[in-house]
Amino acid sequence: MLTAKARAVDGPDKPFRPAEIKRRDLDTHDVLIEINYAGICHSDIHTAHGEWGTVNYPLVPGHEIAGIVTAIGPEVTKYKVGDRVGVGCMVDSCGECENCRKGEEQYCLKGNIPTYAGVDKYGEPTQGGYSTHIVVTEDFVVGIPDNIELDVAAPLLCAGITTYSPLNHWGAGPGKKVAIVGMGGLGHMAVKIAHAMGAEVTVLSQTLNKKEDGLQFGASEYYATSDPATFEKLAGTFDLIINTVSAKIDISAYLSLLTLDGTLVNVGAPAEPLAVNAFSLIGHRRSFAGSMIGGIRETQEMLDFCAEHNIAPKIEIVSADQIDEAYERVLASDVKYRFVIDISTM
Amino acid sequence: MLTAKARAVDGPDKPFRPAEIKRRDLDTHDVLIEINYAGICHSDIHTAHGEWGTVNYPLVPGHEIAGIVTAIGPEVTKYKVGDRVGVGCMVDSCGECENCRKGEEQYCLKGNIPTYAGVDKYGEPTQGGYSTHIVVTEDFVVGIPDNIELDVAAPLLCAGITTYSPLNHWGAGPGKKVAIVGMGGLGHMAVKIAHAMGAEVTVLSQTLNKKEDGLQFGASEYYATSDPATFEKLAGTFDLIINTVSAKIDISAYLSLLTLDGTLVNVGAPAEPLAVNAFSLIGHRRSFAGSMIGGIRETQEMLDFCAEHNIAPKIEIVSADQIDEAYERVLASDVKYRFVIDISTM
Repeated sequence: MLTAKARAVDGPDKPFRPAEIKRRDLDTHDVLIEINYAGICHSDIHTAHGEWGTVNYPLVPGHEIAGIVTAIGPEVTKYKVGDRVGVGCMVDSCGECENCRKGEEQYCLKGNIPTYAGVDKYGEPTQGGYSTHIVVTEDFVVGIPDNIELDVAAPLLCAGITTYSPLNHWGAGPGKKVAIVGMGGLGHMAVKIAHAMGAEVTVLSQTLNKKEDGLQFGASEYYATSDPATFEKLAGTFDLIINTVSAKIDISAYLSLLTLDGTLVNVGAPAEPLAVNAFSLIGHRRSFAGSMIGGIRETQEMLDFCAEHNIAPKIEIVSADQIDEAYERVLASDVKYRFVIDISTM
Repeated sequence: MLTAKARAVDGPDKPFRPAEIKRRDLDTHDVLIEINYAGICHSDIHTAHGEWGTVNYPLVPGHEIAGIVTAIGPEVTKYKVGDRVGVGCMVDSCGECENCRKGEEQYCLKGNIPTYAGVDKYGEPTQGGYSTHIVVTEDFVVGIPDNIELDVAAPLLCAGITTYSPLNHWGAGPGKKVAIVGMGGLGHMAVKIAHAMGAEVTVLSQTLNKKEDGLQFGASEYYATSDPATFEKLAGTFDLIINTVSAKIDISAYLSLLTLDGTLVNVGAPAEPLAVNAFSLIGHRRSFAGSMIGGIRETQEMLDFCAEHNIAPKIEIVSADQIDEAYERVLASDVKYRFVIDISTM
């Protein structure tokens, strides 16, 4: 059993504090990772604040993990000591159900095991990447290509795959008009990835504040959704819309921006239901869909794609002592575009 | 100009009365049809009652039309006098937009011209099939195969194509589990068509009252949605769900019945928005979609498919004097499964 330094939170309204957590001894297929960087995802905040259901505190969040393999179990074949690796939102699944066998472990019929706030197959609570080490079965570890630095690799493990997967699944590419709703951590990755896939990308953001960045990331158009004229002008335009905003928005208004057979995909979920006017779907055989992260094979494919196209998130490095402050700034949308914790400050 | 006998309604609360309406002289590509049968669709009732927006009364509804060609314009090439033909929910479209060029005239970007309660390209109000004759441009007329009787052909022009099109578009067929929500005029056609396509069909109806019919139409399972156990038992089961119910139902509960990448398609639209819990989409990459009738080419394909598979709706013939009574019975769900007006009683 290894003792890792971590940052934990003890309740919905509590600040982060230094903590020590146990990491299990290596099972036959386990990999021990020394973590260098961990991204701060909005899900971390929802969970830490107890907004997504009951949490067993103390909680160590973090599911955007990048580091180095420092030890391996006796039957590990995929990784060796010294490898640069990543871990995302899940650390295990049943491996046997229809969806797992398809490589869609995120949709495991028995429920995947989340990187934190879950219970692993040994019956122990899972604890995330705001820590110096983690032990993960090799099937849920991905390799980070050499030309992606570990600090920018971290956010790819959630923000990257969450946007890559629906863009890939719904065929973003040459000749396709894609709109990205929201220019936060997920949105800015979606713009870069959709552009690299060859699609014509439009950003739909509340204001034009980040327009310059959006165009630099690869968007060819950028509109403010606070301006009602945007919805008139763009009616029936897009083949695919990726909605990265978790707040309750007027989904029917966004559906009206789709062309025949177009799809709007939510990658986040507001707690309240969204009101959908069925006429907005029926009028042009449109679809309103949802997508959750991606499978392990697809996550590796996404990392390789980002390496090939030199795609990296724009990040701001923070120390372990700055997590509370970073959370506040995320909630105030004051981040361009992802905070990443330097675990050496742990 | 031809004078046709018809049944018209003068206002939202008015009964039907005998009327005479003018049908235009034949333009170069027009076909004059002597109507034998016209189905009664729930849309007729919504429109007659003014529930779908302002209507210019007097109104002659009817968009499930079957009859015989009795005259043709000078340049008509597709039909000749004596041909058995049908007309559905639309009688024209721009013919030039992207969607029309794809053969998806129902999604014409300028709006298709509905068979009644619309305005045709001559600026005249369109009047529907509760009448002895209609004049329609040949491109919006379909041929009725010899082995389909005209009385049962009529409902295929709306109820048939409205269900065939989404089943076809979303790939109902061997190996696919399809659920049909509602066992009314549309629902019973959907069961027959999905079964003929080779899918495994389940009916989800409020009660088990029509179970025997449903199994005879081709369903292999039949469940009551009034029983909460139905939703537990069938969670994650279906590849495709066709919702034929226009009332406001708990759409998120039905979405939970879809498997990975499954789609629920609404073919009707309640006036109020539907509340969609985004988690029910995201959890298994599900889609909530809409579909509206079908294109003319696909309508012909549907008729040929029904002829090949001996598919016909189960109908009850009524006379022109019984339209008001039939409307009341439709609203009371007291019809198995479609009323068809015998136009010879006009």
